[in-house]
Amino acid sequence: MTLIEGGVCAALGFRAAGVHVGVKTKDKNKKDLALIVSDVPCAAAAVYTKNAVKAAPLLVTREHLMDGQARAILVNSGNANACAPEGEENARRSARAAARVLGLQETDIIVASTGVIGQRLPVEKIEQGVETLAPLLSRQGSSDAALAIMTTDTVKKEYALETVVGGKTVRLGGIAKGSGMIHPNMGTMLCFITTDCAISSEMAQEALRRAVKVSFNRISVDGDTSTNDMCCLLANGLAGNAPVTGEGEDFDAFLKALTELCTKFAVDMAADGEGAKHLIICTVSGAETEEKAETLAKSVISSTLTKAAVFGADANWGRVLCAMGYSGAAFDPDAVDIAFASKAGRVEVCRDGRGLEFDEDLAKKVLTEHDVTIDIRLREGKAACTCWGCDITYDYIRINGDYRT
Amino acid sequence: MTLIEGGVCAALGFRAAGVHVGVKTKDKNKKDLALIVSDVPCAAAAVYTKNAVKAAPLLVTREHLMDGQARAILVNSGNANACAPEGEENARRSARAAARVLGLQETDIIVASTGVIGQRLPVEKIEQGVETLAPLLSRQGSSDAALAIMTTDTVKKEYALETVVGGKTVRLGGIAKGSGMIHPNMGTMLCFITTDCAISSEMAQEALRRAVKVSFNRISVDGDTSTNDMCCLLANGLAGNAPVTGEGEDFDAFLKALTELCTKFAVDMAADGEGAKHLIICTVSGAETEEKAETLAKSVISSTLTKAAVFGADANWGRVLCAMGYSGAAFDPDAVDIAFASKAGRVEVCRDGRGLEFDEDLAKKVLTEHDVTIDIRLREGKAACTCWGCDITYDYIRINGDYRT
Repeated sequence: MTLIEGGVCAALGFRAAGVHVGVKTKDKNKKDLALIVSDVPCAAAAVYTKNAVKAAPLLVTREHLMDGQARAILVNSGNANACAPEGEENARRSARAAARVLGLQETDIIVASTGVIGQRLPVEKIEQGVETLAPLLSRQGSSDAALAIMTTDTVKKEYALETVVGGKTVRLGGIAKGSGMIHPNMGTMLCFITTDCAISSEMAQEALRRAVKVSFNRISVDGDTSTNDMCCLLANGLAGNAPVTGEGEDFDAFLKALTELCTKFAVDMAADGEGAKHLIICTVSGAETEEKAETLAKSVISSTLTKAAVFGADANWGRVLCAMGYSGAAFDPDAVDIAFASKAGRVEVCRDGRGLEFDEDLAKKVLTEHDVTIDIRLREGKAACTCWGCDITYDYIRINGDYRT
Repeated sequence: MTLIEGGVCAALGFRAAGVHVGVKTKDKNKKDLALIVSDVPCAAAAVYTKNAVKAAPLLVTREHLMDGQARAILVNSGNANACAPEGEENARRSARAAARVLGLQETDIIVASTGVIGQRLPVEKIEQGVETLAPLLSRQGSSDAALAIMTTDTVKKEYALETVVGGKTVRLGGIAKGSGMIHPNMGTMLCFITTDCAISSEMAQEALRRAVKVSFNRISVDGDTSTNDMCCLLANGLAGNAPVTGEGEDFDAFLKALTELCTKFAVDMAADGEGAKHLIICTVSGAETEEKAETLAKSVISSTLTKAAVFGADANWGRVLCAMGYSGAAFDPDAVDIAFASKAGRVEVCRDGRGLEFDEDLAKKVLTEHDVTIDIRLREGKAACTCWGCDITYDYIRINGDYRT
């Protein structure tokens, strides 16, 4: 499995483009409409937010994917089309416009939106925009598409990798966005993945479900699960491998690559959390079950006080143990060891649930690094889990105290 | 039912004091050890944090209250005695020292601590401190005791009120602290309530459980449930009413007063949340059940993004609906009305789950007031609930980014 260039267009037969149409801002340098198209029909899979309030494009997309087939993805940033007047109608109009310029069926189009909730989508700009967009579609378009789906993201998120399935080289690539309103409960962001692997829509759905569970569902920026989260996968089969239609070695190889890709996007999102200065990596090992390890690690990365401590480079491990305590997972507080680690070193701060004397200067150095690991060890069993989060900073407050204006 | 002076000493037969012993800081103006004593034996009730990691003083207090009786409360601030070396032994030594100077049994003493987690309690300072403290006990000591239990609180929290139970005037009063690490799951702070009402320990426990459920359990500052939360009630019976030993009119009168008192403390804590500039009052009405209304309201006051929006005086109601959506409560997103209100006016921002055109200038004015109400109306039934929270500010980050140093 190797990383390759090309992002969402790395897989054979995919083209993409991104342009400015004015939904996000008047600044013509800010792209806000992206299109991703496969030359041939694709098996399609998607997972959606578990928020009870679901944005209109998710409802329309879910309907379009009933047959497990799609060809193209149209995404706008700047307006979430959630809780908005004429939301569903406007999502349909967007899909219809894309279908028309691409010569496809309306149901072949996946639509997604991200941005402010509750305002009417200026669908006319999107209808006109797709006319400009379609001629720009190219094999080099991934970067523009990645830029067009960003909101408060500071870093463009695009990755691709290559692996072997059934003796054939297959490529998986994608683009993603996610910075605020991020909390593990399914998608928690937008992520569009393409592959030329031949795989049935059922197995694509199964692979996506499993990959999301151990990647996107293990990050948190602010505990707020968005109304618009979606992760979808288009597989067009052009790699020429024997189609993956069930469990087995080929499925495992595909799942491994998909999980790797999703994890890269997830970690990027946590690191690019709104205002974040640190990526927090929390590993829990020695747990009885992976589920319990996950509950504990998630609680730690979600703790506002722990996030603030990392921001302040303060080795306040009591907040870590406190967050484990209210997680809901049963564990023995007297059999917990905690250490902080980064490339500057490692400091053991708690053994058997009790504070250790430690070198405060070294702890400060360890916590000043960008990537900070909170290493938690139980003595219950052999299961482990890693979750990713970020610190909470003045900039998070600034960004979210005045987002709409 | 009327508010009266005297705080935790308002009820007949209670004396209190607070002094500086150097656990919190060297600054001799900062008191950090409080003692509350009843002249006669009391029925005692307490509720504790649901955090699986419980501080040592809670474990010792729970043991001491097995018989439903107590006489005194000893509290220090500056050190939580949680996850600390020799925690239980030091909690016992504190109780023993208080028992000795007061001429009571060790098991008559309730001990509590609040402050930094994981560091050894300097119990020697407390043992010496109680010697100074005991002679200072007085009927006017509530204010000093209230000051001595504060950590990051900016406002002293003491209230008392008078009501009639069984034809007799009874008094209830208390002191409380709570500013950070506050999240509704039982006590979420320290609160010590005294009353001269005659009531059995069983009914005192029942009243406290019910009062806490609708007051402290409906606030949140930062989503972090502390390891040290405790709310306890001492009832010494000096009011001379016929003892409350079961449900009925007298119990209801007592419960009503206790709930009023707990609610005043709870709202104060939310308003005095670390760094907070606003009290957020979220009311959900028209719900099918009170439980559902509470789940929705709690989710809204706990949402980091909603808190940041209030900080920025940004009428970003989409975040409110989003927080309702991920609360876990089932509701119809298309039958939700939302308004923001304060003494500056009222702005309807969402009807039937869709955004309304509204006066942005008025909204800004409404949200600039200190007390901001988020008024949510469903159309499912007649149940309602109010929860209280606060905004998240730069100061919250500053306070918690460098708490230990």
